[in-house]
Formats: sequence, structure tokens, C-alpha cells
Amino acid sequence: MTIGVLHGPNLNLLGRREPEVYGRTTLREIDERLAALAADLGVGIECHQANGEGELVDRVQDLGDRVAGFLVNAGAYTHTSIALLDALVGVGRPFVEVHLSNVHAREPFRHRSVLAQRAVGVVGGFGAESYLVGLRGLVAVLRERG
Amino acid sequence: MTIGVLHGPNLNLLGRREPEVYGRTTLREIDERLAALAADLGVGIECHQANGEGELVDRVQDLGDRVAGFLVNAGAYTHTSIALLDALVGVGRPFVEVHLSNVHAREPFRHRSVLAQRAVGVVGGFGAESYLVGLRGLVAVLRERG
Amino acid sequence: MTIGVLHGPNLNLLGRREPEVYGRTTLREIDERLAALAADLGVGIECHQANGEGELVDRVQDLGDRVAGFLVNAGAYTHTSIALLDALVGVGRPFVEVHLSNVHAREPFRHRSVLAQRAVGVVGGFGAESYLVGLRGLVAVLRERG
Amino acid sequence: MTIGVLHGPNLNLLGRREPEVYGRTTLREIDERLAALAADLGVGIECHQANGEGELVDRVQDLGDRVAGFLVNAGAYTHTSIALLDALVGVGRPFVEVHLSNVHAREPFRHRSVLAQRAVGVVGGFGAESYLVGLRGLVAVLRERG
Amino acid sequence: MTIGVLHGPNLNLLGRREPEVYGRTTLREIDERLAALAADLGVGIECHQANGEGELVDRVQDLGDRVAGFLVNAGAYTHTSIALLDALVGVGRPFVEVHLSNVHAREPFRHRSVLAQRAVGVVGGFGAESYLVGLRGLVAVLRERG
Amino acid sequence: MTIGVLHGPNLNLLGRREPEVYGRTTLREIDERLAALAADLGVGIECHQANGEGELVDRVQDLGDRVAGFLVNAGAYTHTSIALLDALVGVGRPFVEVHLSNVHAREPFRHRSVLAQRAVGVVGGFGAESYLVGLRGLVAVLRERG
Amino acid sequence: MTIGVLHGPNLNLLGRREPEVYGRTTLREIDERLAALAADLGVGIECHQANGEGELVDRVQDLGDRVAGFLVNAGAYTHTSIALLDALVGVGRPFVEVHLSNVHAREPFRHRSVLAQRAVGVVGGFGAESYLVGLRGLVAVLRERG
Amino acid sequence: MTIGVLHGPNLNLLGRREPEVYGRTTLREIDERLAALAADLGVGIECHQANGEGELVDRVQDLGDRVAGFLVNAGAYTHTSIALLDALVGVGRPFVEVHLSNVHAREPFRHRSVLAQRAVGVVGGFGAESYLVGLRGLVAVLRERG
Amino acid sequence: MTIGVLHGPNLNLLGRREPEVYGRTTLREIDERLAALAADLGVGIECHQANGEGELVDRVQDLGDRVAGFLVNAGAYTHTSIALLDALVGVGRPFVEVHLSNVHAREPFRHRSVLAQRAVGVVGGFGAESYLVGLRGLVAVLRERG
Amino acid sequence: MTIGVLHGPNLNLLGRREPEVYGRTTLREIDERLAALAADLGVGIECHQANGEGELVDRVQDLGDRVAGFLVNAGAYTHTSIALLDALVGVGRPFVEVHLSNVHAREPFRHRSVLAQRAVGVVGGFGAESYLVGLRGLVAVLRERG
Amino acid sequence: MTIGVLHGPNLNLLGRREPEVYGRTTLREIDERLAALAADLGVGIECHQANGEGELVDRVQDLGDRVAGFLVNAGAYTHTSIALLDALVGVGRPFVEVHLSNVHAREPFRHRSVLAQRAVGVVGGFGAESYLVGLRGLVAVLRERG
Amino acid sequence: MTIGVLHGPNLNLLGRREPEVYGRTTLREIDERLAALAADLGVGIECHQANGEGELVDRVQDLGDRVAGFLVNAGAYTHTSIALLDALVGVGRPFVEVHLSNVHAREPFRHRSVLAQRAVGVVGGFGAESYLVGLRGLVAVLRERG
Repeated sequence: MTIGVLHGPNLNLLGRREPEVYGRTTLREIDERLAALAADLGVGIECHQANGEGELVDRVQDLGDRVAGFLVNAGAYTHTSIALLDALVGVGRPFVEVHLSNVHAREPFRHRSVLAQRAVGVVGGFGAESYLVGLRGLVAVLRERG
Repeated sequence: MTIGVLHGPNLNLLGRREPEVYGRTTLREIDERLAALAADLGVGIECHQANGEGELVDRVQDLGDRVAGFLVNAGAYTHTSIALLDALVGVGRPFVEVHLSNVHAREPFRHRSVLAQRAVGVVGGFGAESYLVGLRGLVAVLRERG
Repeated sequence: MTIGVLHGPNLNLLGRREPEVYGRTTLREIDERLAALAADLGVGIECHQANGEGELVDRVQDLGDRVAGFLVNAGAYTHTSIALLDALVGVGRPFVEVHLSNVHAREPFRHRSVLAQRAVGVVGGFGAESYLVGLRGLVAVLRERG
Repeated sequence: MTIGVLHGPNLNLLGRREPEVYGRTTLREIDERLAALAADLGVGIECHQANGEGELVDRVQDLGDRVAGFLVNAGAYTHTSIALLDALVGVGRPFVEVHLSNVHAREPFRHRSVLAQRAVGVVGGFGAESYLVGLRGLVAVLRERG
Repeated sequence: MTIGVLHGPNLNLLGRREPEVYGRTTLREIDERLAALAADLGVGIECHQANGEGELVDRVQDLGDRVAGFLVNAGAYTHTSIALLDALVGVGRPFVEVHLSNVHAREPFRHRSVLAQRAVGVVGGFGAESYLVGLRGLVAVLRERG
Repeated sequence: MTIGVLHGPNLNLLGRREPEVYGRTTLREIDERLAALAADLGVGIECHQANGEGELVDRVQDLGDRVAGFLVNAGAYTHTSIALLDALVGVGRPFVEVHLSNVHAREPFRHRSVLAQRAVGVVGGFGAESYLVGLRGLVAVLRERG
Repeated sequence: MTIGVLHGPNLNLLGRREPEVYGRTTLREIDERLAALAADLGVGIECHQANGEGELVDRVQDLGDRVAGFLVNAGAYTHTSIALLDALVGVGRPFVEVHLSNVHAREPFRHRSVLAQRAVGVVGGFGAESYLVGLRGLVAVLRERG
Repeated sequence: MTIGVLHGPNLNLLGRREPEVYGRTTLREIDERLAALAADLGVGIECHQANGEGELVDRVQDLGDRVAGFLVNAGAYTHTSIALLDALVGVGRPFVEVHLSNVHAREPFRHRSVLAQRAVGVVGGFGAESYLVGLRGLVAVLRERG
Repeated sequence: MTIGVLHGPNLNLLGRREPEVYGRTTLREIDERLAALAADLGVGIECHQANGEGELVDRVQDLGDRVAGFLVNAGAYTHTSIALLDALVGVGRPFVEVHLSNVHAREPFRHRSVLAQRAVGVVGGFGAESYLVGLRGLVAVLRERG
Repeated sequence: MTIGVLHGPNLNLLGRREPEVYGRTTLREIDERLAALAADLGVGIECHQANGEGELVDRVQDLGDRVAGFLVNAGAYTHTSIALLDALVGVGRPFVEVHLSNVHAREPFRHRSVLAQRAVGVVGGFGAESYLVGLRGLVAVLRERG
Repeated sequence: MTIGVLHGPNLNLLGRREPEVYGRTTLREIDERLAALAADLGVGIECHQANGEGELVDRVQDLGDRVAGFLVNAGAYTHTSIALLDALVGVGRPFVEVHLSNVHAREPFRHRSVLAQRAVGVVGGFGAESYLVGLRGLVAVLRERG
Repeated sequence: MTIGVLHGPNLNLLGRREPEVYGRTTLREIDERLAALAADLGVGIECHQANGEGELVDRVQDLGDRVAGFLVNAGAYTHTSIALLDALVGVGRPFVEVHLSNVHAREPFRHRSVLAQRAVGVVGGFGAESYLVGLRGLVAVLRERG
């Protein structure tokens, strides 16, 4: 069982910019921690980052056939992208929505998620840890569904 | 380090009513699974359920002095209770908001959370597993904050 | 077949306060008229009043196993209580929403009902008579559903 | 004392179309059941159906002088017709708004009633029984107002 | 297989009034072009125009038993008539919504259609040609549904 | 030069119903006062009342060829009828919107007029006098455009 | 009986600026036409123009004791001035709201009037003629109220 | 003459929690200062605090017969509790709404008060002093009403 | 320590107009009662009334250097004047917003205050007494801030 | 005359994913059917699909000089893309908006189209047939415009 | 060519009050820098400040005949003054809207401008420099229009 | 000091399409005029155009390390792109928002800017000149911040 991990726009800046807001953990480190946890849980992962909405849709379609589910931090597209929602629903794989920060404590335009309505679950606010708890949750649900 | 766990209205019905929606896990079983994980993580937990908004405020105030943080599934009050928000903020302990179901996939009046704006993080959609991943996340944050 | 009757906040003031608005019938008299009609219809009834949202949720849960349906005048909670909605839906018994006054002829915040969307039916505006026509309607539906 | 009964657009299709939604009772049968109950209650009734808003306004004006009150199921016009509201208020007779289904459990555009704000009361959700409980309620109110 | 064609209010003015807006084609000519295309497609058509909402509901009910589907240009009622929606749904025949002009390029109150949510499809903006492409589309769908 | 005068739904009740609200002047008397003023102004008038929206559209179309303008009190349809707006614009004759009462001092759903955006002018609040000042205004404008 | 006439901001530009929009009639000419009609009607008038909201409030207060009613074209303040509304209501004299143009055919922020809710009546769209028909209407109402 | 003083949810935390926000005055000290001022003004007071909405409704009903008016700081329930509004109106005693902080300078969900529309007056922003000025105001109004 | 007292538009009418609404106390009497209380409290006051928004801004700027705070009843400008808000904030003196009536019990456009968000506190509903309790509150806050 | 055909995000999944929703026709088959009809109509077509908003804008600009019009199924971007609207308007070629499904029968966020306001026409709900009727309509309009 | 420069309410406080927000540049210094730049650009300027809306309207009317365009920082009136908009449009001179601060980064009620819809352009956020870039932009446009 | 200049979707069409709206200046000419002014001001510039949202985010990230600030005309993405906002804020460089046209005079969906809330300043409406005044303003602010 392989899990696709998608990071949306600007997440490649993690750890280098605004560390006082987003912490000093880089995206590479998050991917490494995810890989370590995935090994513990006995699953594989495949990670991608892209700044373009269309590229993320491409990634979902590409991964769709070989992953059992997605862990998605769509960044800014979380709040606007119907195309990403359609792609995730279209490939028929369950996905978990992940956020580093607690979006409900930020600007109002970040409170609403276009993706969440079709997600298995949502995890946010724990910094890099959000990805780890999201992965645990997703694997638990996938195993329960058998 | 002790974590206070609060279950809001109707969560005492879990496992006995509408199992096709909420699963067959009872609240007692969730508390037991939480206790087991807490032991693994080296923390204590104290669990309470109440159907009344005022009772939940009372519980937050009572627990406020002896817990390091809260895991809160406020059920229906998630969406309306400013009093519960004030209590959690008032006692000055970080809290994580937990939901069994993915509230964003339900009726619109369940999409908005009054509590989330001041929560450390939010976890929802993984069934009973939501509590476990929430507990892991909360403990991770508390330990990081030292 | 027994019907649970629930009266929400301030309904215990009926007949004693603001008689020019709510009439001179007391809640006790309403319960007696309901009991008489119930006897005619060959069903039992059990009546409770409470001012607290949590208490009403408790009552719904307690009655849930031994009544065939509910007649509910939730008063002010009609317009705000998701917890009461969850309890009524959670115990899986059909319910009828009842109002003494015509809420649509009052302040706008009384026009919307949180409960109505899951109710079997709604009756309002006939004063104490609303309870009686509601009981007739509920029994008719329960008997039709067999 | 005579009661005017008005059935709005498409109610003439009752029992023949979409029986899985609206049941197999025809409008004729509802009128017969109303007539039987009216006889029991010692009042007369006069029933009309029309698909046109203007025709319903005409009927209200015609009946205005010889009925003591109206039982109105305005169907789709419930949600939009200010003209019907004006007619009912204009002839100065109390009216009860009746619905077969629970409009609050249907599409949002059926939640709002233009008529309800000036109605004596509202009854809905009990199928054909709604008319009967509405008639009982209306007669009770008219007799109380004496 | 026969198709019912309904033209709503003011469409009888076509070709004679405001030709700079609606063109010089009359409603009679549209009906003739529809008849010609219907003959090509091997179906019959029956066309009606009315200015009254109730009359259009009457027409839908009358035609309901002998047509396989409807082509409907409800004109102004497109945007407001729940009664017409109920009639079309009530008789259980698929319908296509047609507009001469592109309603989305006109005043905001013409952007919303009450009928479209239950229509098979929507065609607008091609002038008299809209009816023809709508008829083709409707027949294609009816034949596919067999 | 002839002016078409249109009275909408329930205006035939004028003077007989709710005199404390609408005064004791009947519609016949208004038409007579209009005729007298029209004679003074040297124009003809033709007056019609109808309760149906479709009938009013028919009247506008019929009168369209032989009147120079319309004086319209559309009553309840003022606030909702796009069909009537389309008819008035379609026949290409200027029209003045008239109200007996000051609609802005009544319920909010009477504040908005669908017709006013295309009217020459609007007059309201002067009781039967509104028609007279409206007629004067319309004739003045027609003569100026002459 | 004297009538106070108030002209709001920018009305002093009438006839000199944007004649293609507002015509070539100057404010002085309007006042002269009003004076002539007033003489015909046997009443006196007193006219004022001001660009300041506070000045207009001052004028209402000053005139309040010696006029029987007001004819008010508040221009831009029509849509925003609660202070002017309070002044007109405060001095207890009936007033008629007048507009040169049909505000409903202009920008949306001109559709709403703060004053209209307490006005006797509203007249708009007839150019300078609006003042004259407004004066006739106001005098008719004042004489009826006697 | 006795005044009932009601303190809502979390006000029992005053002075002990978040002193930088709410100051160091405890609720007990506020009650003592109120008692001292009451003695000066020649009235009695009776003070209660509760975290539950239903309990506060109970207190209003209990006190209703023996107090002349209420001083109410409903805390979070200020913004949501129709039940508390109904209780205060139901017992027919005038009440003054009090806030420690200026709610208009806080989060938007604290700007709206459900109670204020039926209150005699509102006082907020002066810290513990708000209660004292509120008591003075209430007593002044009660004495004026005689 | 001197307090600036500002009275907005139409408050000069107090006591002479609409006494059944606003009472018979004149603005002069309010100023005298304020002066008496000020003397008791050991502070000076300076009172101004103006009907113009710009004049009130001028007064705030003039007084800004010699007063310790403002007591402001901005009347109608309370609900709309950003300019007055800017002036009060600009001169850097704390201010208390005062209303004679309870604005929350009046028309919706009076519920919102532009000033309140930056005020120290708000007092309303006690008639002329509002000014006195407002002055007490302001002085208490100013002395506490020292 | 050549027509540009643009397919937006996820349309490349057609026929392979969710066939129960979107049918088993692939995008290639749609393009072939379009080519066949285009040949019948005597026009050429050029078809492109892209998942990225920017790529679609690029395609519109590239095709702008050599096509007479566009047939556009922008998928998810229909509802949000001002950039695509600007591109289509910028190149000055008429376009027809096409949908496979009836978007008005789906989630509310699919009801609104950013493109439709500037489209020649809109066709939706007929499955793959929508493209064919859209092509017929577009060619008819282009030929009429000559 | 002369440019009229208008400064709205409270701008006379610049440099003396809240320097940490608005900087230490006074309005006199801004006018001097504008005069220097105007001389460089070969145009004249005439500068006015007023706190009253009516005064600003007066200034626009006075300057209207002798200036080629306006540079307007209407301060608080930017967001509410239809009267000022009407004056600027009425005198038929192009104007540029200027802000010292970036209004979009401040309170929501400062995001909307009533003036901007008819302005040539808008410049904001550069402090005193905003006036200079605005003057350059205005002169460039005026010269281009010739 | 180097300034990054970003042109969003469709700006590459400038000068060739819709010259009557956007003028005949091409994007190349704008870049040349910017380069000339930059040389005068003693700064360097680097210009990029892209139609894709993700590409623009990439450009911001690439330029982030070597420019002192950004001049951004995001075209259609101005109104929707949270991703672009996040990128600009993420790289920590001040930016100025530029528009060729006055967006407030165009369609309502162009009135709102997602970027403006975090911009240093906004300039719009001066055609190509907007870029020049924006560059002057940005350099002035950067030099003042030192």
C-alpha cells in the first residue's frame, strides 16, 4: 500500500522563509519524517510539490492508479480549487486534508475549504506533526475499509 | 502531565444508536483506547461527558488547574458555544478540537466551529481514531512548547 | 404505544405570566388535555419540562427506549439547538414540532427552526390546541407507518 | 359556519402522479375526508382547486363574504404569492396554512412562506392528515374567538 | 414519440416588437422550423403559448400523458415559477430549458433559473436556433434512455 | 392620445375592505376621477383591473397598439412580476408606476419594485390622489417627448 | 398654509451642468414654477438649497414652526442621511420626497431611500415636473387631513 | 425594592484568570461594591452566578416575583440566548444589560446582543464600574416609572 | 480635568418636540445636570451641540487639546460617521458613547455604531440619566488610568 | 472556417473514471464525433485539453488568430476563472460554453459561471451530445453573423 | 492648466497627531511638495482642506470652472459621500483619488470607495508620496486627453 | 537595488487586442518605459509575464532573493489568487499592486483585490502610466524604509 503526498503552492519555501510563523522544518525534513513513519506503519509514500493548480491535478491523475490514498496539503488552493477537488474525487481514492497552521485562526478567506467536503478527514494546526497524525489517520481508515 | 478529555452532548449514545453512521465503538471503548495510548505516551487522562453546555463549562473550569491541555469533542456545541470557548480560553490551557465524522461533509450548519479559532489544532473524520490522532498531536505540541 | 411530550424553557410560566399574549391555560392544564386526548386515541403519554438545553437532551435520551415518538415544543431552543436535534435524530424516534404561537408572525429570529428539517411535521399558532392537533397528527403517522 | 378550502397548483395531480412521494390519496378523497370531519365538527366546507395565482385570488374574494375562515394549501404559491396574501388579509377572514409534506425537509426555496406571517397557524408534514388537523385547529380557534 | 413545446409570457410578441433585440423571426416561424426538424428526426411536436403561469401549468398537465418530453421556454417565469417546476416534475416527463438570448448577459434577476435544477439540459443564446439545438438534444437523450 | 390604466390584484376590493387602511374610495370612483382629469388634460383613458398576472400581460399587449402610455398600479405583482415588466417594455410604451400607500413604510418585501427600473416615474403614498398626480406626470412627459 | 421646499447638494448646478442628463431647467426656474402652482393652489412656499447635511437639518428645524409640510429633494442625502430623517420626523410635519430622475433606473446605491419610510409619499422621474406633482399631492393630503 | 443581579458563564473566573484582560477584581468584590452602592441608593440586591443557560433561566424565574428589576451580565449567552430573553420578558421585570469590556471592540460575534432589544438600557466598557453605573441607571428608571 | 460633551444633530430639539418619545427634559437641563454632577465629581465640563458632521469634527479638534475625554451623543451620526470616529481617535482622548434611548429597540439602521468600536464604553437607554451614568463611568476610567 | 475546441481540467479522465456519472464515452470519442459533425457542417475543428488554467489561457491566445470561434468546456474553471474569460474576450472570437452534465442539478458552487456572461450561448446536460448541439449552435450563429 | 487639490476631514491634523501612524509630515508640507512638483510639471495647483461634507461640495463647485482636474483625498468621506461623487461628476472634471495609507490593509469599512467608480485612477499607500504620484498620473492623463 | 516586475495573464496581448479599451501600447513598450524610468531613479528592473498562476508563484520565489520589491499587475489573478498573495508575503519583499484600468469602474468581480491587503500601495487607472507612478512610489517607500 502506497500513499501519495501532495504539497501545494509555496510549501517549498518552508523552513527558509518566515520561520517565526511556519517553523524551521523544511519540506524535505517533513518528507523524511513521513517516510520514517510510513516505514513504521508498513506503507510506502510518494511525495510531490507544485506551485501550479494544473500541475497538482496532473499529479493526482498520475498517482491515481498506483496509490491507495492521498495526504494533501493544497495550501492556498485548499480554499478555491474545484479542479483539484474534481481530480481527487475523479480518481476515486480517499484523501486526508492537512494544514500546518490552524486555518481557523487566520484570515477569514482561509476558513473555508473546497476540498474538505469530500475528504475522509481533516487535520490542522500541529505544524509538521499535522502530516504525521494525518498519515496515521489515513492508514487507519484505509485498513479499516480493507 | 494530564490531559482532560471532554465529550459533549449525545456522545454517550455512541455505539448503541445509529451504528451505521457512527460505528459500533462505544464512548467507554474510546476512553479505554485513549487511556492505552496515553499510557504509551507517558501521560495521564481524565475523561468526562455531559449533555449540558453549562456542565461542560463547569468541567473545563474544574479541570483547568490540574490538566496541561484539553481534547474536546464538543459535539453540537462546537458550532454555537461561545461560553465553552470563553471557558477554554479563560483557563489558559491549549486544546485540540476533535470530531468523529467529517463535519464538512454534513449539513452547512456543522461547517463552522466557534472553538476552532482558538484551538491548537483540529482533527476530524477518522471515527474513534480521530481522538487518538488528536491526542498524539496535542501531546506533541505540549512537549514542543515545553 | 407511548408518546413523549417535551416542553422547553419558560413554558412552565404559561398561564401565570403575560396572559394577554399566551392565554390563561397553564402547562398543567395542557398536559391534562393531552392526557385526555391520548386516552381517547388509545395511547399513553409522558410529559416533561426543563429550562436547560442539556436537561432536554437528557430527557430525550431517557425516553428514547420507551416511547414511539415525541411531541416537542422546544421554545427558544427550537431556533438554535443542534444538540437537541442530534438527540432526537440519535434515538431514532419520529417527532412533531409544536408551537403555541405562530412563530412566523413574530421576530425574525423565531422564523427559523433547527429541528423542523428532521421533524415529521410542524404545528403552530393554535395556542394550547397546537399540542392536541400535533398529537393527533403524530399518532396518525405512527399508525400509518405501523 | 362554513370553511373555505383552497388547493393550489398541481394539487389536482395528487394520488395519480409520484405516489411514492405524495401517497395514493387523491384530492377528491381529501375533500371527502374533510367533509366528513366538518360534519362531525358541525361546520360546512367548500373546496376549490386552481393552478393560477389570479384564479386563487378570485376564489378568496368570492368566498370572502360567506366563509368564516380558510384552510389554504397554496402549494408553490405559498413561497412567492404576495397577491394571495393580500387577498386573504383583504377579505378579513382568518386562515390556516396547510402542507402535505414537511417543507422544511425539502429544498431551501420551500422553507419560506409568504403567507405564514399573517396565518392563524401552520400545519405540515402529516400527509392528507395535515388538512384534518388543520381543520380541527381552525374551527377551535374560530369558536374560541366566537 | 411526441414532444410538447411550451412558450411562456410575451413570446407571442416575437418578431413584431423590439426586432433589434429579439430578431424578426416570429413565434409561428419558430414553430414551423421546429416542425420541420421534428419531421426530420421522426418525432411529432405540439406547441402552445400562454401569458399566464396557471395556464402553463394547465398545459403541462394536459400534455403530460401524451408527450415523451418537453421543450420549455418559460420566459419570465423561468426565474420565479416553482409551480411550473412542480408541474414538470409532477408529470414525470424530461424537459429541456430553452432561451433565445443568453440570460447570463442580461440583468442579474435573469441569471437564476428555478426550472434548470430539474431539467435534462439547458440551451440558450442562439436565438431561434436555441429551440432547434434543444430539440435535437432532447430527442437524443430520450432515445438514449430508450 | 389615450392612456391605458391598469389595476392589479385585489384592487377591486378597494373601498369595501379594510377602509381604515385603504380609505373608502372605490376603484370605480378612482376611474371616474381619472376620467375627469383626463378630460381636463385633453386625453382619453381606458381602465382595466385583473387579479391574474397573465391577464395583466394580456391587457398590456392588447392595449399596446392604441395607447400612448400606461399608468400601472400592479399591486402585489409590482414586487415580483418580470413578465409584466417584459410586456411593458415589449410594447414600447412609457409607463408610470403608481401606489396608493407609501410602500416604503410597509413590509420590506414591498420596498422593492421589479417595474420601477424601466418606468418613466414612480408616484406613491397619496391614496387615490397618487393616480391623479401620476396621470399629470405621465401626460407632461409624453407631451414633452411629443 | 405654507410649504417648505428643500433642495439638497448639487441641485444648485441644475441647468448649467450635464444638461443632457438633467435638462436645461435651472433651480430658479423650478422655484418659479413651484411658486406659480402654489399661488394657483392657494398656498405659500419657501425654498432653500444647501450642500451641507447639517445646513439642511438647520433649515428643517427653522422652517418647522411655520410650514405645514415639506417638499424635499435631498439629492445624495436621500440615500444616507439619518440626521435629515430625524429632523423631518422631529418637527412633526408631513413631507413628500421628490426626485428629478427615476432613481430606480440608476446605480444601485440610489435605489434605497432613508427618508421614504417616513414620507407621506414619493414622486420621481418626471424631471422638474416631479416637484409640481409632488406639491399637488402634498397639498391634497394636507387638506384631507385638515 | 430589590434588584436581582445575574452573572453568566465564566464570570466566576474573574480576577483569577487573565487578569491582564479582565483586571484583578473578583466577582465577590463586584458583588460587595454593588451591595455598598445599593445600600446608598436605598435598595436591596440579590446576586447569582451560573455557567448554565437553563440555570440562568431558572434564576430569572425564581427571582421574578420578588425583585423590581434585573442587572444582567449574561456573558457569552448575551449573544445567543433567546431562552434568557424570553425569561426576562416573561417575568415582566425591566432589566439592564451590563458588560465589563466594550464588546464592540472585540470579535464580531460579540457585537450583537440578543437581550439588548428588550432591555431598558445597556452599559459596557467600564470594567467593574459598568455594574455600578448600570445599577444607578436601573434604579433611576425604576423610580421614575414609579 | 475637563470633559468635553458633544451633542449631535437634532438634540437641540429635545424637550420641545415629540415629548412622548424623548421626554420633556431640554438639552439645557441635561447640560445643567451634567454640570452639577461634574462639580460633585470635581471635574469641569464644556458642552456643544451641532447639526453638522463637519462642525462636530471641528469641535472635537478644538477641544482635543484641553479636555481629558469626551462624552459623545452623536445622534444620527453615531451610525454613519467615519469622520467623527477619525477625529475622536485622532485627538487621542478616550470617549464614551451615550444614547438617550435604547437604540437596539429601534429601527435596525440604529443598531450599529461606527463609534463604539473605539469607545471606552457605551451607555444607552436611561434617557437623560444616560449622560450622568456615562459621565460617572468616564471619570472613573480616566482616574483609574491616572 | 475552423472552430477551436477546449476541454478543461480532468476531462481527460472521461470514460475511464466514474463511468456511472459521466458515461463511458472517452474524450477521444467526443473529439471524433465532433470532427464528423464538423465535416458535415463544412468546418474544421482543432481540439485541446489541459489541466492548468494558464495552459488554457495560452491555448486561447494561440488559437485566437486562426479560429472563427471556440467551443469551451472549461470544467472546474467555468466557475472561477476570470483569466480564461479575459483571454476569450481578449482574442475577440465568439465562444459557446458547453457542459456534459446539467450543472444546475449539482452542488451550488457549480451553478455560477464566470464565462457565461460573455458567451454567445450555453449548452449543458446532454452528455457528449452537448458538444454536438453546441457546435451546431455556434456554427449557425457564426454563419448568421457572416 | 490648474489642478484642484482637496483634503477631507481630519487631514489638518496630519503630522501633529498619531505621528507613529501617519508620519510627521504636515498638510502644509504636503501642499508645498505638491506645489514644487506642480512647478516642475508646468501646472498650477490650488489646495483646500475642510472637515464638512457640504464644504467640500462647495469647494468642488467653486473650483469646477477654473481647474482642469482634481486630486482628492476625501478621507472618511471617501467611503460614504455620494454628494461629493455627484459634485465631482457634476462639474465634469477628471479626478484622481488619493490615500496616504493603504486602505485595504485597514478596517473593512475603509475598503470600499464611493468615489473610485468614477475616478480616473486611484493611488494609495505611499504616505505623502501618494499625492505626488497621483499628481504625476493626473497630469499625464490630462495631457494625453489633450 | 533591483525591482521585480510581474505581468499576469493576458497582459502579453496588450496593444494588439482591444486597443480601444487598453490602448495601443504593447507590453514590450511598457517594459522599455519602466527600464528608462528605473535608470533615471538609479535602480535595476527585471520583468516577467506569465499566464499561469503557478508560474507566477514560481517567478516570485525565484526573484525573491535578488529583488528589493515587486511591481505586480496580476491581471485576473488580482481578484482570486491566495497562492500569489502567499508567495509575495512568503518571500518577504514589499510589493505595489498596479492596474492599467480603474478596476472600480469595471465589473463588480474586479472591485475586490486579494493582494491589496498586504500591498504597500495600489495604483490604477492611468493606463501604462500606472506602472511608472507605481515604480516611483515603490522606490520612494523602499528608500524611506532604508
